Amino acid sequence: MPKELTSRSENYSQWYLDLVMKADLAENSAVRGCMVIKPYGYAIWEKMQAELDRMFKETGHVNAYFPLFIPKSFLSKEADHVEGFAKECAVVTHYRLKNADDGSGVVVDLTAKLEEELIVRPTSETIIWNTYKNWIQSYRDLPILCNQWANVVRWEMRTRLFLRTAEFLWQEGHTAHATSEEAQEETIKMLNVYADFAENFMAIPVIKGVKTASERFAGALDTYCIEALMQDGKALQAGTSHFLGQNFAKAFDVKFISKENKEEYVWASSWGVSTRLIGALIMTHSDDNGLVLPPNLAPYQVVIVPIYKNNEQLAEINAKVAEIIPKLKALGISVKYDNSDNKKPGWKFAEYELKGVPVRLAMGARDLENGTVEVARRDTLTKETIAVEGVETYVKDLLKAIQENIFKKALDYRASATREVNSYDEFKVEIEKGGFILAHWDGTPETEEKVKAETKATIRCIPLEDDKTPGKCMVTGKLSAQKVIFARSY
Amino acid sequence: MPKELTSRSENYSQWYLDLVMKADLAENSAVRGCMVIKPYGYAIWEKMQAELDRMFKETGHVNAYFPLFIPKSFLSKEADHVEGFAKECAVVTHYRLKNADDGSGVVVDLTAKLEEELIVRPTSETIIWNTYKNWIQSYRDLPILCNQWANVVRWEMRTRLFLRTAEFLWQEGHTAHATSEEAQEETIKMLNVYADFAENFMAIPVIKGVKTASERFAGALDTYCIEALMQDGKALQAGTSHFLGQNFAKAFDVKFISKENKEEYVWASSWGVSTRLIGALIMTHSDDNGLVLPPNLAPYQVVIVPIYKNNEQLAEINAKVAEIIPKLKALGISVKYDNSDNKKPGWKFAEYELKGVPVRLAMGARDLENGTVEVARRDTLTKETIAVEGVETYVKDLLKAIQENIFKKALDYRASATREVNSYDEFKVEIEKGGFILAHWDGTPETEEKVKAETKATIRCIPLEDDKTPGKCMVTGKLSAQKVIFARSY
Repeated sequence: MPKELTSRSENYSQWYLDLVMKADLAENSAVRGCMVIKPYGYAIWEKMQAELDRMFKETGHVNAYFPLFIPKSFLSKEADHVEGFAKECAVVTHYRLKNADDGSGVVVDLTAKLEEELIVRPTSETIIWNTYKNWIQSYRDLPILCNQWANVVRWEMRTRLFLRTAEFLWQEGHTAHATSEEAQEETIKMLNVYADFAENFMAIPVIKGVKTASERFAGALDTYCIEALMQDGKALQAGTSHFLGQNFAKAFDVKFISKENKEEYVWASSWGVSTRLIGALIMTHSDDNGLVLPPNLAPYQVVIVPIYKNNEQLAEINAKVAEIIPKLKALGISVKYDNSDNKKPGWKFAEYELKGVPVRLAMGARDLENGTVEVARRDTLTKETIAVEGVETYVKDLLKAIQENIFKKALDYRASATREVNSYDEFKVEIEKGGFILAHWDGTPETEEKVKAETKATIRCIPLEDDKTPGKCMVTGKLSAQKVIFARSY
Repeated sequence: MPKELTSRSENYSQWYLDLVMKADLAENSAVRGCMVIKPYGYAIWEKMQAELDRMFKETGHVNAYFPLFIPKSFLSKEADHVEGFAKECAVVTHYRLKNADDGSGVVVDLTAKLEEELIVRPTSETIIWNTYKNWIQSYRDLPILCNQWANVVRWEMRTRLFLRTAEFLWQEGHTAHATSEEAQEETIKMLNVYADFAENFMAIPVIKGVKTASERFAGALDTYCIEALMQDGKALQAGTSHFLGQNFAKAFDVKFISKENKEEYVWASSWGVSTRLIGALIMTHSDDNGLVLPPNLAPYQVVIVPIYKNNEQLAEINAKVAEIIPKLKALGISVKYDNSDNKKPGWKFAEYELKGVPVRLAMGARDLENGTVEVARRDTLTKETIAVEGVETYVKDLLKAIQENIFKKALDYRASATREVNSYDEFKVEIEKGGFILAHWDGTPETEEKVKAETKATIRCIPLEDDKTPGKCMVTGKLSAQKVIFARSY
């Protein structure tokens, strides 16, 4: 192995960090809490963006761009929002530097102080609803279905690459509607888009649910989420979609004249996923040898490595590979041929394993003679030798099989790590083992808080599609409408 | 007309502003100098991004993402760079807000002061070269060919939508090389990519040149540029590519072991284009009726408008259009069918003219009878009636013709507005008429400064491909190697 990873069983957190760094996904920067997303990591993000953007557009959304800065006073306009977002944020107070008198460098020019401080957006509801005010007069101006791809900043004290960083990249959808029903439909529609993307592209099974009041987005009436289960038994919130009611319309005085000629406040939704998804991708599929990428999101799906003793052999392999590549590309398969001569095949094998390339083809002198090629799949680490003739269709089917297999593997893991409990004592034992724990809860924030304080487990969501049988709260014995999902989480 | 524009002859600046606002491209936001890019404007930017990104990748570049914030001390590390960029910038000094004691909202928590202030990136050379330091040990790690798509902030005092805003979107390429020659080749290669993009996608003729020392990027040894001429006779710098020498490598101590086993500083280039290009697009092609978009960048290339007296007619037209649309799409043509019933055809015609849609198809009852459709082209405002049968190939050819025609029109305008002068007196007369003025210059900053102070004209560039005949400086009579291009500029 060119680069050793800590094993998952030894130290899961360290394994994660090793993998992110050694697979060239990201690294910490000179700025506390801000990461550098390296080209290979960014290529995965670009793949995600492309698919999500396509899905957003197919559901009628358009992209726009709103300012990075938010006037401080805007944050105070929605009472709950300010509580949630005005605390840890980057504050711009000045707009000029000057040379230090002692020649030591540059210092802030204290005369260039902003009248009102600007906040680097932690999320954009306030600046966007202040803008929508000018865009909306009548029901004819509705709905507005905007998304933006942007960077946001939340001054997190404890950061971890991709999972929690001070600056991160995301998309945030902000929609405006004439009726509550339509805004709620939009909220659910986008939750479904996220679930579709997670399962069919990321190969991550997710549970769709609604958050409890205490876990809601600051300013939302309802927060829906998709929750995934990582290999170490901790939950990860992979995307959220919020029904905002008329809260932001009221805060920014956004009214419209309805079809019935009445003045009403506009209804809203917002929804987002971020570079955090890359963390989810890593922790769902990867192993002690490195990254395992779903073929649907891999920067390149196939790598070809030549095995040769001399330049003559290499030239023959090059010629053969030059025939294979266009056939793969014609089937929409992305491929990299690594015939660089400063690394040995064994080094390359380990490197592409580390980087999670779904399929590796290796071709040597004997393959040339026999008209064969060795095919290795990253997910199972198995290999076989097949005829070169028709390799492209074989690989196409294999990529599909890998995509399905890693989803199924994650689904099986989740099934094995999901348990129902009927008492709080049982809960306390089971929660130590990790996983999703289904249990009845009486619906009060007090009980939720007690469980969190005593076990570090939070209610991940009230699932939308699970069993709705009523029962009794595992803690208080009071009535419960349905079991909810508890877990420790990222 | 649903929305009146100020005419260009009446007030060119106001025409520009009217057009940006009324064609729904962008608007000012609540934050001084920061714009909101509206969906239609952003759709143009997305088209630009897609083409540029493809061109960057075809020339071997990869995307990455570096932090929004730059530690203040980084700016001081490269002596020229700090002079150019440390002056007007957004400074983050604190990382927390708290509730005001008097309940009036939130205030900056003065206890949460950063040890070192952070600057919102005005450009990323410093943070990127600080990162490259860890990526580069040997010649085997070179070249590094990274690009990033990002927002940047420069605290401009006088702003104008797209042309000069405090926050803008751009891409910035940052490359690292083992030799000076290779870095210079890269600089020129990207200048050529920009020129190719400007001419073949934006349909804007550009002059490739090198900047004089006083107009160089802060920290560069040479700044190359593409210069375009707007309809009002003012020049606009549309993209720059910088040869940075070893300046940033020295500032951030980035060395590598060469093939010859010697330790050397790394060579650099950087290059960028921004949302400013949208301003150039508008001011090159548009007219008093609104935007004129090149088909290669139009969010939709064709709009179809039905003309009908009753629902029965509309249903027949809908059916006919439903046959046309897939045929257009099959040829890669993007199309919008606007059969909304709350606007009259005349309103729609004016609206899509304002928005610069290259081709409009209109279909009425008589067209149904005759098997025809009316085709109007935005660039010439001419229309004709043709057979529906085969309209898709007709439109495809027409789009190509429009792309070529608007380029040619811009080229002809530039030719007519480019003059050579041989004396400073002549220059003073000619510069008042606008346009590019070719004149000999002695190569000194003093003469350049004198011309600027006396005429408000700057040297846009020393053209790379023009006549290299030596002569005498129009101001001092000293020797000049070749004529340079003067103009007043945006």
